[in-house]
Amino acid sequence: MSKPYVAGMDIGGTNSVFGIVDRDGNILCTDSIKTQQYKQLDEYVDAVCDGLRPLIDKFGGISQIQGFGIGAPCANYYTGCVEGAANLEWGKGVAPLAKCFSERLGVPAALTNDANAAAIGEMKYGAARGMRDFIEITLGTGVGSGIVANGQLIYGHDGFAGELGHVIVEKGGRPCGCGRRGCLETYCSATGVARTARERLEQSDEPSLLRAIIDRPVESKDVFEAAVKGDKIAKEIFDYTGKILGEALADFTAFSTPEAFILFGGLTKAGDFIMEPVRKYMEASMLHLWKGKVKVLVSQLKDADAALLGASAIGWDA
Amino acid sequence: MSKPYVAGMDIGGTNSVFGIVDRDGNILCTDSIKTQQYKQLDEYVDAVCDGLRPLIDKFGGISQIQGFGIGAPCANYYTGCVEGAANLEWGKGVAPLAKCFSERLGVPAALTNDANAAAIGEMKYGAARGMRDFIEITLGTGVGSGIVANGQLIYGHDGFAGELGHVIVEKGGRPCGCGRRGCLETYCSATGVARTARERLEQSDEPSLLRAIIDRPVESKDVFEAAVKGDKIAKEIFDYTGKILGEALADFTAFSTPEAFILFGGLTKAGDFIMEPVRKYMEASMLHLWKGKVKVLVSQLKDADAALLGASAIGWDA
Repeated sequence: MSKPYVAGMDIGGTNSVFGIVDRDGNILCTDSIKTQQYKQLDEYVDAVCDGLRPLIDKFGGISQIQGFGIGAPCANYYTGCVEGAANLEWGKGVAPLAKCFSERLGVPAALTNDANAAAIGEMKYGAARGMRDFIEITLGTGVGSGIVANGQLIYGHDGFAGELGHVIVEKGGRPCGCGRRGCLETYCSATGVARTARERLEQSDEPSLLRAIIDRPVESKDVFEAAVKGDKIAKEIFDYTGKILGEALADFTAFSTPEAFILFGGLTKAGDFIMEPVRKYMEASMLHLWKGKVKVLVSQLKDADAALLGASAIGWDA
Repeated sequence: MSKPYVAGMDIGGTNSVFGIVDRDGNILCTDSIKTQQYKQLDEYVDAVCDGLRPLIDKFGGISQIQGFGIGAPCANYYTGCVEGAANLEWGKGVAPLAKCFSERLGVPAALTNDANAAAIGEMKYGAARGMRDFIEITLGTGVGSGIVANGQLIYGHDGFAGELGHVIVEKGGRPCGCGRRGCLETYCSATGVARTARERLEQSDEPSLLRAIIDRPVESKDVFEAAVKGDKIAKEIFDYTGKILGEALADFTAFSTPEAFILFGGLTKAGDFIMEPVRKYMEASMLHLWKGKVKVLVSQLKDADAALLGASAIGWDA
């Protein structure tokens, strides 16, 4: 029954990257197409299959593939559909991707969002191996999350659960892309760090290396580079970001009490500049029951591989 | 294998109420002892067994009992122990209740806290029948919660998960018994409503029926009675309470996306005075994905029975 490989795909706004993965989490080969090049769902599915078949054939054909796991925005695990993805021409309504691919390829296919895929990848191959209760927090352009409790991913009643980036951490705070105010992701994403930088620089005339960046907006990696050089404002920006994230993690602990929070994505490259304040403020805000009991770890998935690897992982049980 | 009855017990600060329950959730008989009368764990366990045995014998003896389910403060489901219950003389350290009772009675025993017990009771006999994803919120002297996802109660890594009463909803807000500030339960418990009443009455000289209460502190049921009579301040107090709770429920939805929140306990007796603002502010604060999709229901468990019934329910799978 059990076959040696899965196929996986990460559907990004620009590229759809697909490949073949073995049971140890080795990505054996990949290819990609442009996600936005196709207006109709059928065209898109055809293009993916045309790209994927040669890779499958390299490893013994479809009979060697256990399933196809897909990570996508607005993915509903229960229905196998992408639902209302505003940025995808072929995904604006309800796009039944899992059904399309399983019919076309002849293997089971399953779909989840990228943060859930990262959580599953982490559980199978990364920092969460052996854990039954953990929360993956993805800190990228936005903030996403994948929540594992009792060894299972929480999909909720409708298949969309685990959107901790949209927990409101500051009532009446920063406007969010979702139309509300004060969501965690307006502070703790890469974009949020850049917003904090802009605010801080405007608030005073205090000298900062960041003031030398005049030809373009300050980005979160500029803040990291300035912090490395000892810049006080840059370090304060990470402290502020870490306070908001750490306090949020203390609140999340009251929900599912994970063994660990696992942070993934661009912002974790700032290392201790972000991890230390996150841990410090989480502990300070933690209910006495859980003080000293919850770890904050950096993902062990390689950035370049994580999305595809995580997505492929759901192919094993598709 | 499957036996017709379970035994259940609700350990309160004053009384420990125990009884026999059938598969339909009928409480067939109960008795109680004083929780605080016993200094040693052994004495307490003996007294419970002495009270429970005659009830068991009435229904055919221990061979007819599937298990013993216990609801208790500071209960750890995984270990079967009450851990660090400051208010219980025999429970201050680690009290292995499940082990003691299963040895003494000869049936499996299991332990959980009262809010988790209420959630399980609700799932088996109440408003959550047929639901796989819901959150029970108990609004009593404090605020507790039992979170069910994928049809399972979430106990977390350490057995204590689901303390939503201690999510911080107002940074730097009201001091909480837990030593921190701004916890949900400082606003949305019966005690929280009384605190709001005191604050509101001090803030202005506006007339209110509540001002007639001068010989004792205003309680949440006074606020309800005044609201029924059309008192403006009383209605504002419920609106304020409902706003804080409703906004918190919107945030909780981002976590496990329940089909419903089920509110249980004294505060729900205020009916629409509390339920309407809760629903209104929850919807207003909800992420677009879930607007109009999450119900807020009142528990269908009878108050007097709920704790014992919920506790007994975990006896079926003990």
